[in-house]
Amino acid sequence: MMDLTNEIEQHYEDMVNIRRHMHMHPEVSFQEENTKQYIYDQIKDLGFEIRRDVGGNGIVARLQVDDSFKTIGLRADFDALPIQDEKDVPYKSTVAGAMHACGHDAHTAMLITAARILAAHKEELPVNVVFIHQHAEELLPGGARSMVEDGALDDVDHVFGTHVSSQFPVGTLAYTYDHAWASPDAFSIEVEGRGGHGAEPHEAIDPIVAAASLIQQLQSIVSRTIDPLKSAVVTVATFNGGSSFNIIPSKTVVSGTVRTFDKDIKESVRKRMEEIAHGIESSFGVNCNLNYTDGYPALINDNDQLNHVLNVLEGADYVEKREENSPSMGGEDFSYFLQNTPGAYFYTGVKNSGIGADYPHHHPMFDIDEQGMKAGVESLVKIILGFNN
Amino acid sequence: MMDLTNEIEQHYEDMVNIRRHMHMHPEVSFQEENTKQYIYDQIKDLGFEIRRDVGGNGIVARLQVDDSFKTIGLRADFDALPIQDEKDVPYKSTVAGAMHACGHDAHTAMLITAARILAAHKEELPVNVVFIHQHAEELLPGGARSMVEDGALDDVDHVFGTHVSSQFPVGTLAYTYDHAWASPDAFSIEVEGRGGHGAEPHEAIDPIVAAASLIQQLQSIVSRTIDPLKSAVVTVATFNGGSSFNIIPSKTVVSGTVRTFDKDIKESVRKRMEEIAHGIESSFGVNCNLNYTDGYPALINDNDQLNHVLNVLEGADYVEKREENSPSMGGEDFSYFLQNTPGAYFYTGVKNSGIGADYPHHHPMFDIDEQGMKAGVESLVKIILGFNN
Amino acid sequence: MMDLTNEIEQHYEDMVNIRRHMHMHPEVSFQEENTKQYIYDQIKDLGFEIRRDVGGNGIVARLQVDDSFKTIGLRADFDALPIQDEKDVPYKSTVAGAMHACGHDAHTAMLITAARILAAHKEELPVNVVFIHQHAEELLPGGARSMVEDGALDDVDHVFGTHVSSQFPVGTLAYTYDHAWASPDAFSIEVEGRGGHGAEPHEAIDPIVAAASLIQQLQSIVSRTIDPLKSAVVTVATFNGGSSFNIIPSKTVVSGTVRTFDKDIKESVRKRMEEIAHGIESSFGVNCNLNYTDGYPALINDNDQLNHVLNVLEGADYVEKREENSPSMGGEDFSYFLQNTPGAYFYTGVKNSGIGADYPHHHPMFDIDEQGMKAGVESLVKIILGFNN
Amino acid sequence: MMDLTNEIEQHYEDMVNIRRHMHMHPEVSFQEENTKQYIYDQIKDLGFEIRRDVGGNGIVARLQVDDSFKTIGLRADFDALPIQDEKDVPYKSTVAGAMHACGHDAHTAMLITAARILAAHKEELPVNVVFIHQHAEELLPGGARSMVEDGALDDVDHVFGTHVSSQFPVGTLAYTYDHAWASPDAFSIEVEGRGGHGAEPHEAIDPIVAAASLIQQLQSIVSRTIDPLKSAVVTVATFNGGSSFNIIPSKTVVSGTVRTFDKDIKESVRKRMEEIAHGIESSFGVNCNLNYTDGYPALINDNDQLNHVLNVLEGADYVEKREENSPSMGGEDFSYFLQNTPGAYFYTGVKNSGIGADYPHHHPMFDIDEQGMKAGVESLVKIILGFNN
Repeated sequence: MMDLTNEIEQHYEDMVNIRRHMHMHPEVSFQEENTKQYIYDQIKDLGFEIRRDVGGNGIVARLQVDDSFKTIGLRADFDALPIQDEKDVPYKSTVAGAMHACGHDAHTAMLITAARILAAHKEELPVNVVFIHQHAEELLPGGARSMVEDGALDDVDHVFGTHVSSQFPVGTLAYTYDHAWASPDAFSIEVEGRGGHGAEPHEAIDPIVAAASLIQQLQSIVSRTIDPLKSAVVTVATFNGGSSFNIIPSKTVVSGTVRTFDKDIKESVRKRMEEIAHGIESSFGVNCNLNYTDGYPALINDNDQLNHVLNVLEGADYVEKREENSPSMGGEDFSYFLQNTPGAYFYTGVKNSGIGADYPHHHPMFDIDEQGMKAGVESLVKIILGFNN
Repeated sequence: MMDLTNEIEQHYEDMVNIRRHMHMHPEVSFQEENTKQYIYDQIKDLGFEIRRDVGGNGIVARLQVDDSFKTIGLRADFDALPIQDEKDVPYKSTVAGAMHACGHDAHTAMLITAARILAAHKEELPVNVVFIHQHAEELLPGGARSMVEDGALDDVDHVFGTHVSSQFPVGTLAYTYDHAWASPDAFSIEVEGRGGHGAEPHEAIDPIVAAASLIQQLQSIVSRTIDPLKSAVVTVATFNGGSSFNIIPSKTVVSGTVRTFDKDIKESVRKRMEEIAHGIESSFGVNCNLNYTDGYPALINDNDQLNHVLNVLEGADYVEKREENSPSMGGEDFSYFLQNTPGAYFYTGVKNSGIGADYPHHHPMFDIDEQGMKAGVESLVKIILGFNN
Repeated sequence: MMDLTNEIEQHYEDMVNIRRHMHMHPEVSFQEENTKQYIYDQIKDLGFEIRRDVGGNGIVARLQVDDSFKTIGLRADFDALPIQDEKDVPYKSTVAGAMHACGHDAHTAMLITAARILAAHKEELPVNVVFIHQHAEELLPGGARSMVEDGALDDVDHVFGTHVSSQFPVGTLAYTYDHAWASPDAFSIEVEGRGGHGAEPHEAIDPIVAAASLIQQLQSIVSRTIDPLKSAVVTVATFNGGSSFNIIPSKTVVSGTVRTFDKDIKESVRKRMEEIAHGIESSFGVNCNLNYTDGYPALINDNDQLNHVLNVLEGADYVEKREENSPSMGGEDFSYFLQNTPGAYFYTGVKNSGIGADYPHHHPMFDIDEQGMKAGVESLVKIILGFNN
Repeated sequence: MMDLTNEIEQHYEDMVNIRRHMHMHPEVSFQEENTKQYIYDQIKDLGFEIRRDVGGNGIVARLQVDDSFKTIGLRADFDALPIQDEKDVPYKSTVAGAMHACGHDAHTAMLITAARILAAHKEELPVNVVFIHQHAEELLPGGARSMVEDGALDDVDHVFGTHVSSQFPVGTLAYTYDHAWASPDAFSIEVEGRGGHGAEPHEAIDPIVAAASLIQQLQSIVSRTIDPLKSAVVTVATFNGGSSFNIIPSKTVVSGTVRTFDKDIKESVRKRMEEIAHGIESSFGVNCNLNYTDGYPALINDNDQLNHVLNVLEGADYVEKREENSPSMGGEDFSYFLQNTPGAYFYTGVKNSGIGADYPHHHPMFDIDEQGMKAGVESLVKIILGFNN
């Protein structure tokens, strides 16, 4: 068998170069024209069957070992964010207003490196492997859904992925059983009354008092309707209406987010929100236009597959610690890959406060300790090697 | 012409006796069996055409002077209240739990006295006079409405009445133009959810949170819907639901009162109340059963007739002062008499703190300074004499 | 005595010219440099003692008849509004973004015309007259207060003024006893919490839910604290906070207006508003910064002086109708003149739908029927002539 | 080693008799005079060191095997409820208004039976055993706390207990890791304003509107302050104030329950409740008297000890199924035993719909399938036998 640690060390410099190249040339979601070409160039000579433009800008590369084997998917996303890079490093973003502020460059570098190692040991592999390079994770509707619809998981038995995290130190793998990421929905409610002079409220229909009541009633969804043993968030984050202190505006708009793990809970929240909007219409004589946008589904790990990940990393070199973590109320469209294919998603620690690699994700100063990528590659390769054929 | 002051003095002792007899033998609304007989006995020999049991226990006595004359109505109510008399006076109520705590005994004594004086001067009168003794002012639906429906005001051109007041001193006549007494409506709203254990709110439909929201929304009726130059009150005075700290009750009931002067305003309040009740149903999944009971209409004085009252009392002996007063948010069913017949209603002061005659009406210690009744008789007689034939 | 009607007709063309000159050259509040010079030029040769720059840009011109006589003030304001004139008339505003959209040009033209007529009949006048040309009525703190402080009313026994109105037809004088214009205050409340991610409300202090509760509690001021027989308005007209659907903002700001007639009521509203702001601070852990700005005081007519106005116009030529009107919830800084000097303020009708003179005040299409100014001059002159010396 | 199944069968009839004797003679919390004597009589001859009246009516019986051994506690509660037994069975309660409606009679019968079996095999036991018969579980402050304070757990290394459940079938053991029962607190808030007539709200301080706002603000505790991944309930279950539709009451009282698992969360809820009560005081000018009563602490299982229970019952005869269960929002004062002594608490199924043994606990028809007690004894004995000495 291969000496994985040795191979990771040999590929490390190339992996860093890939990551830094992407970091310097970020492309935001759905606009990853150069990035998809770049990734293709990195893997085109490894002997894979490669499908390009899967469900958009996605790439699916198959390493077929034996038709009788199971097939395992490994996924990395590769889009950047519309954020201005404020770091002062040689590999700083060269694109104004765009930045790999969430670490998808590292995801891609790790997956390409894993692909190279696995390709070099094709004969030893117990399973076929599908490398899934996904575009557009950061922006609804995301790239995962269309890639799945376009066949990215056809014949795939299990699928895995990892996200770097500046919250966990290099060497830590963090995981969550079952519901690991929430479903992050968005809503806006336009409350339309009738404008008028502030001195004559009876001639107007005040949308602000109506919206204030709406917000208070929305609190009762979480406090009264949701099983206290389950999780749900209903946040009104914006409320904007009116521009003059003495003119009642004709309408006001509130918007916010709903976070849930269970589909039933989500539907219950949405239904109550509709009922409350109708109630406010009757109570105050306004019109309430509710616009509810489904976010990604909740990400639900298959516990057996997650245990597979944990087991194969027993005694690993780079993954020094496996740490159970609370679910995240944030969202992740890897959830689409897991909807019909058992698999697991976990964090790979890249935090290193000593070198400033501890800013939160999406921060203009975000950076990673690139050494942490070794554990990511180790995880991906061992997940594959750990299967039986 | 008559020497009115002299005649009032001569009748004073009899008037006091009448008032005290009634005070000792009070009968509550709609149960005035002995009282109606007593009144009849006092006036049966004065030469009037008398109709008994008008619209219930009412009495209408007509002093017809000349068929070509106008006809003027004078009204006094005669029911008592279900209150225990706590005064220590010789004429204290002899009936447990019943008391003339609002002065209707004095109203009757004054009207009988005026009738005797006017009857004695029939030949000098410029108008025909109808004496209206009304039962049941204190209890919905009141006696006024049915007396009007039973013809009490047939052929009556103008109608007048006065209420004694322990707020104004003896000698003061207090008046209000236009809207003088409010329309006092009652409502109750049963909010029906689904009971359950307090630890499992999601299995219940909480009627208390729904009713709390209802109450807050009801505030917006007065604050937003009613013209700020108009008056309206919406008071929730009772809220009762639940008996155990950890059991969500299946329902709760709130009740209260609405006070308005204008019919439009009243209907606007009622409509908004219905809309809010429907809104709460939708917002919280409860049923809201609104029960709205109309009180007496608002009492609206005819300003010309009120000016007639003020004018004829210019330089009067007992009415020393005429004082304009704010409208009252309380109700009075004399309003029914005024609905189609122009007239006026005013206060006759009977306050005298020196003898303890300053308790509020409906108080167990309520009493009047009987000297104040002289001004009442003076007003009633001069109202009649002041017309032209 | 003079033939007033004839004189008004003779001055009419000049009066129109004055009004149109001002209409074409509007200057907004506190910036009336040319206007004050123009007015001065119109009256400088009439034999008045003239004080310029009174309390700012104000002008006070005294027509002293006899030191033993009473002194009567007449006031007109002369500032324009920051509104773009959209009318298509020869006398349209020549200044971009400025317009006499409230009729102060007409007020000035009428007062100058009255001054010319009165000056010509100085010997016949029963009183001394002070002509008060006031700047800056439209913008807090207004010009009236500083003019009074600078002596504009020294030795003045009574003061009068009139406002044209596009709501009442030419020939109508509209009036209100007692409280005629409200006190229009402004407030803003900054609700400061702690920002955070919408998915993690427990890490933030949500200012939007706090402000929604604040708005609901503010409704209870009018619904519960204010005497239903009195008037008050508390309007929240703006609510602005948050810009992203999933980010709880750190603060939000609401603003609005309070309208009252009685000082006690106003102070009661303000006190309750402060208490509620403190209550919200405690309830939600936010900081509430209440900024309350006093508007002009309520304008309270002296009823005797208002009756003087009505009496002297009995049988007038241009004032064909005197119509009682409801109080206005709007504000007017003539109230400062009336605070220590009994007087009256009333509307002069300039409405004429046939020529498009019926837009509301402050509308970009606002215009008047100039014929209506005749009644205004008639009123001002007769108010003076109607006094006894 | 013993043949446990055989011994349980032999003791079964006695166990049923004990349970039925107690069922027929229930004594409510803190009044278990006969019950404590009865229990003592059942175990007094088994060779235990027995302490009576421990922390009240509690009994602690020690089976000392070897001073070098660990000591394990087993606990059963024995109080009844103030509920009228409505079953029609021979062993129906003979005490009016008292009933074993929660199964504590079965707990006691199972523990006595386990004690008899273990006493008979003293020589084979790997640990010392302390049998804890606890009074007063159903009524605050409960018996557990005072028993612990009185030394019931001195020298005890681990402690176990089981509760029968009519929700799980005979043969099922249901368990919850970590937080298994909530902390059930109680609160009441008296909102004191100033009474008055419903027609004159400005003369009163309305406690009902204030309490309605209080209730709405309380919703924000769960919706905004509590980590959505944690559990908390704040229920207002009673709201009582006012008795007449037109009289604003001087005060109103709301009461309810708080349920939490974490002490931090509980303290956070309590603190927010105090802040909201203070906020309402300021906002509405009322006094809020908050009375907060701590319930039992949350019951937190030691996962290692719970795994011990699950492990020793692998392949058991009566415990056919081990089923993980959601935490309960209800409370249980076994939590006091677990505060400093690692142990576990679990459910023993006694449901059998075929014989009507499926009413909820605390129901007047509550009963158990007594066959289920066999599994309970098996669990208790095997927990002891499963330790190593």
